[in-house]
Amino acid sequence: MLLCDVGNTSYHFLDGVEDYKREANSFDPSSVKEKVYYICVNPHAKIILQELENWIDLSWHVDMKNYYETMGIDRIVACGTLENGIIIDAGSAVTVDIVKDGVFEGGFIYAGLRAMQQTYKNISPALDYSFNFELDLDKMPKNSQDAISYGYLKTLYCEVMSHQMDIVLTGGDAKEFAKIFPHAKIDERVIFEGMKKIMKKANVC
Amino acid sequence: MLLCDVGNTSYHFLDGVEDYKREANSFDPSSVKEKVYYICVNPHAKIILQELENWIDLSWHVDMKNYYETMGIDRIVACGTLENGIIIDAGSAVTVDIVKDGVFEGGFIYAGLRAMQQTYKNISPALDYSFNFELDLDKMPKNSQDAISYGYLKTLYCEVMSHQMDIVLTGGDAKEFAKIFPHAKIDERVIFEGMKKIMKKANVC
Repeated sequence: MLLCDVGNTSYHFLDGVEDYKREANSFDPSSVKEKVYYICVNPHAKIILQELENWIDLSWHVDMKNYYETMGIDRIVACGTLENGIIIDAGSAVTVDIVKDGVFEGGFIYAGLRAMQQTYKNISPALDYSFNFELDLDKMPKNSQDAISYGYLKTLYCEVMSHQMDIVLTGGDAKEFAKIFPHAKIDERVIFEGMKKIMKKANVC
Repeated sequence: MLLCDVGNTSYHFLDGVEDYKREANSFDPSSVKEKVYYICVNPHAKIILQELENWIDLSWHVDMKNYYETMGIDRIVACGTLENGIIIDAGSAVTVDIVKDGVFEGGFIYAGLRAMQQTYKNISPALDYSFNFELDLDKMPKNSQDAISYGYLKTLYCEVMSHQMDIVLTGGDAKEFAKIFPHAKIDERVIFEGMKKIMKKANVC
């Protein structure tokens, strides 16, 4: 039995204790013959997966009542693992969700690292820098690389810290973002914990 | 005599009391026969303008010592108009600069409105919304449009307000951003004030 979190960029599998990723663009899910319990936010993959008998969509077992209709199932499942705190999922997008006393309080969507670097580059070739995650967040920048890094990172930092809650970092860029949120707990498998919790509650598997 | 601020998107002219814009992509600056005092951040236009005798580059008269080498001349000129405060120039990029006691303290670069909307759309078609500038910034969002609006606007708001300084808003999207910074002073001609100040100091014209 496998667990799989299907995103816009990759299929993220958990095989017992090992986790691994496959590129969403090139991976053929019908090549997997085992039973796979999955959640999926990728509209293209969704259509393919519902035709495959051994791929079982866990979203049917998720209690959506505290969430909103268009909210990504990955955010919902991750929030279900938290009693109190902020969960930052740093992937193609950076989602920031707040849970208080086990209830989803709302959340926002920030652009992901690569998308944002591309955005600055598109605005002007003079802004084609990689972000400096070692940047001093207490000092207004005086060079171009820090000026865009601060624009992307300090604004997010400022909003997140204003909630004064424990932070869980997950997603492909969790380790990068941990540099600006050094007190956050990194948990790259939080989504699988959420999926297991749902399966247990629904007596699936 | 004309003043002109040449950006990546447009030529912004001041003709005595009237100001008007021409699209950078299609405008031919050699069609202007009057004397034009200008500043320019557009690399393509820069090459053309330096060949035109009646276009006079004011950047030669700017005292750069308090600024950094790759900083846009428009930001430098705008900062020169301020004694104390934050100046937000909301154009293709949103630049945020701080001046204390007449001295530039540093600044950062945020993505402009249109660039950012495109970024969210590129991340996922599910995020293809226009921003809601009427959003309640004190409440964590529970729908997709507000989730991206909050991600773009509240994070910026949070950082800017943390400096507790007067805010001047300028640039093509100044009126939109005024909705989230209601106490800011809108001054769409701040750049021309800065240019006049430089001309006066340098005895140009």
